[in-house]
Amino acid sequence: MTKKVGVTDTTLRDAHQSLWATRMRTEDMLPIVSKLDEVGYHSMEVWGGATFDVCMRYLKEDPWERLRLLNEYIQNTPLQMLLRAQNVVGYKHYPDDVVRKFVQKAEENGIDIFRIFDALNDVRNMRTALEAVKETEAHAQATVVYTVSPVHTIEHYVETAVTLQEMGADSICIKDMAGLLKPYRAYDLVTAIKEEVDLPIQIHSHYIGGLAISTYLKAIEAGADVVDTATASLAFGSSQPPVETITAIFSETEYDNKFDLDSLFDIDRYFEQVRRERGFERGVTRITDMQTFSHQVPGGMISNLVSQLEDQNSLDRIHDVLNEIPKVREELGYPPLVTPTSQVVGVQAVFNVLLEERYKVIPDEVKSYIRGYYGRPPAEIDPEIKELAIGDEEPITCRPADLLDPMLDNIKDEVEHYAEKEEDYLSYALFPQVGLKFLKERKQEKDIFGVDDEDKEVKEEEEEMNLGEI
Amino acid sequence: MTKKVGVTDTTLRDAHQSLWATRMRTEDMLPIVSKLDEVGYHSMEVWGGATFDVCMRYLKEDPWERLRLLNEYIQNTPLQMLLRAQNVVGYKHYPDDVVRKFVQKAEENGIDIFRIFDALNDVRNMRTALEAVKETEAHAQATVVYTVSPVHTIEHYVETAVTLQEMGADSICIKDMAGLLKPYRAYDLVTAIKEEVDLPIQIHSHYIGGLAISTYLKAIEAGADVVDTATASLAFGSSQPPVETITAIFSETEYDNKFDLDSLFDIDRYFEQVRRERGFERGVTRITDMQTFSHQVPGGMISNLVSQLEDQNSLDRIHDVLNEIPKVREELGYPPLVTPTSQVVGVQAVFNVLLEERYKVIPDEVKSYIRGYYGRPPAEIDPEIKELAIGDEEPITCRPADLLDPMLDNIKDEVEHYAEKEEDYLSYALFPQVGLKFLKERKQEKDIFGVDDEDKEVKEEEEEMNLGEI
Ligand SMILES: [Co+2]
Ligand SMILES: [Co+2]
Repeated sequence: MTKKVGVTDTTLRDAHQSLWATRMRTEDMLPIVSKLDEVGYHSMEVWGGATFDVCMRYLKEDPWERLRLLNEYIQNTPLQMLLRAQNVVGYKHYPDDVVRKFVQKAEENGIDIFRIFDALNDVRNMRTALEAVKETEAHAQATVVYTVSPVHTIEHYVETAVTLQEMGADSICIKDMAGLLKPYRAYDLVTAIKEEVDLPIQIHSHYIGGLAISTYLKAIEAGADVVDTATASLAFGSSQPPVETITAIFSETEYDNKFDLDSLFDIDRYFEQVRRERGFERGVTRITDMQTFSHQVPGGMISNLVSQLEDQNSLDRIHDVLNEIPKVREELGYPPLVTPTSQVVGVQAVFNVLLEERYKVIPDEVKSYIRGYYGRPPAEIDPEIKELAIGDEEPITCRPADLLDPMLDNIKDEVEHYAEKEEDYLSYALFPQVGLKFLKERKQEKDIFGVDDEDKEVKEEEEEMNLGEI
Repeated sequence: MTKKVGVTDTTLRDAHQSLWATRMRTEDMLPIVSKLDEVGYHSMEVWGGATFDVCMRYLKEDPWERLRLLNEYIQNTPLQMLLRAQNVVGYKHYPDDVVRKFVQKAEENGIDIFRIFDALNDVRNMRTALEAVKETEAHAQATVVYTVSPVHTIEHYVETAVTLQEMGADSICIKDMAGLLKPYRAYDLVTAIKEEVDLPIQIHSHYIGGLAISTYLKAIEAGADVVDTATASLAFGSSQPPVETITAIFSETEYDNKFDLDSLFDIDRYFEQVRRERGFERGVTRITDMQTFSHQVPGGMISNLVSQLEDQNSLDRIHDVLNEIPKVREELGYPPLVTPTSQVVGVQAVFNVLLEERYKVIPDEVKSYIRGYYGRPPAEIDPEIKELAIGDEEPITCRPADLLDPMLDNIKDEVEHYAEKEEDYLSYALFPQVGLKFLKERKQEKDIFGVDDEDKEVKEEEEEMNLGEI
């Protein structure tokens, strides 16, 4: 039995989402994807997360067209996407019919592996997505979000992983979005899950404070099967660890992935050039990133808090807010500090500090969280805070999406005039304003410039890009 | 028995030498050294290497005065220096009387630990320095320079370490100046040395391509006693790994160093501010750094080659030069690619490529190396190359410094007029031009402004800096 480590490349999704505000364009990707395809990656994460929204909102690109093109050019490597479970690729719960249709269409257009996560590790929020994937040929990877709290014990993660296996997951991902997973903790965690769960385990860490490379090393020693990396110029900082270093560490060991380093350097040189042309910074570990080691607040969340406080001319209160966050988090039942629950905790902590009285104001998203509309909190919410927020009202105990009506049948009329394909209805269902604006503008352009010519130009451009030396 | 890991802070020496061109000033250091002193470091590397030269040459500072001040303010933590064995703190071999006097004076002024290394791991070049340290109260740390070649086997390193122990070393340092030491190799290396040598082992790695944190982890698992780190804003890139990450990795494990993270963050914020004021960049891993994984040429050496080739309008030949380097290195008996032998290999490789004929020109430093004036090469030099370079001439077989006459008695007259203390003669002996210029200017200044007033001002400034909030 070989212990060869599988490696996923996140350069085309998480890496540029983390470092370039998700602004990599399809035209930046196509000239290099054949080379990436030859490396021997376990999979390439190329779609989902924020890319869907950003494609339409800022890049004026059809996300479905990107996927179709990537699937055309990437022949050997399975394509992977990040699916926010019931949130799909958006920021709220969608009805089941949208989730199901989205999964079906994503698979049809080329997704081979769906990585499904819920911010609260509420498996009820993951059920529809998991079932939908199981109805296709694709691989369903279920995710546990890693965080640090008294209730997020190793037993908690093992139990969650066992449940996800029972629900049909084909593999388990440990998602360490805040770079909090320490090497020896990773070793214990992977060992414990491996004892109870008979599925491949993949580790997804962000570099942040510098733990991730060592964390992968210990996780792999404990039997982890796949780790997530990015090309060096899009690695480090808030992104994934670099594939080159991981390859070097395990070369000539029993875990050797046998990647060709010179080929990785060619790929890296290409992206470094794109980075310079697009004017993005390299990933760097800042002091605020290191501070997660003491108060567990992710660096990205600190940046958000800093700009919120600056707006209020209250940046001098940042340390008070950082001290308030663990208290609020405890009172709200220890939600992981990941979107959207990081926002819930952060906004309440800012109010508590700036108004000089705790819970004097409780914003709508906090009330909504307490009412159960995000899912089940990891631990009980402090009864006093619950009373302050929603009085006698009882939180919902069902799955939040159970309260949502099917959507797709009701939006036909609004989109029909602009839609070219079934997928366009999903784009609209997920992002009504942004989606409709995108579809309208696309139609306008085609009406003016003509469909055939434009199609021809695009085709020629693709061929040109693919022939270019890299 | 506790396995608590010792940690050395290199911020005041190697870190700013690696990232800030050695330009940190004593006034940058003094306001924070008391705080550094309280962390609990095994030692602080604060002197030696390039700092001595740069103090006089660029900063107009007396390196001895820096040491005296640091020793005054740092009460708990042993002070450490990097001593280039027979090269002392310069770039050539000095006579034994200079080496001995230098060590004696450095110890008198506050150095507690001398780290002694020779670029070729030629223990003969380290003998005088080792003996001199043993004559003081100080700790003699002997160093093996880590590199990759067919002759630099684990057995080679174990043998060298055994010899150094027999010569009286109090501890052994594995110096990985190029970031080439991989985690599992470090594990095997430390294990093997520990089996034969009964001394503490310290690991000194540069971050470069991203191996170092994991390398420390595996070295520590194998029993390494101390590792070298820097504060985050002066870590990463070509510098050491960050102390904050190392602390986080081992916290709550058997290796826990119990450093106070918040105190480390305060220190880091201070240096981050100095960095911004002085306009230096953060350490970042570049593609050329990653390339060391395939051709073992250190990133710093590549930068030098690039600027040499640019001067010749021949940057397009960089890949040929990188391919030539391993050949030249083999022909010259596999010297480690560290100053000054990296220069020897690099210049020959550039000539071989640009003149379109190998060894058509052999520069003086290469001939000198082949004649044995740098010490004994790790392996035999290719006989054909030797013949081309020096014909029938036989290389020296003695220790290079055996050919040097004592120096200190002969320089008295030249320095006497400007010297204020015995140490000034050493500054001159090591760097005749730079040293004399520095001593002359110091005297001029005092002649004009008066000694007493200036001394008073400096004292006041020190007190002020030490009181300031940080
Ligand atoms: Co991620
Ligand atoms: Co060094």
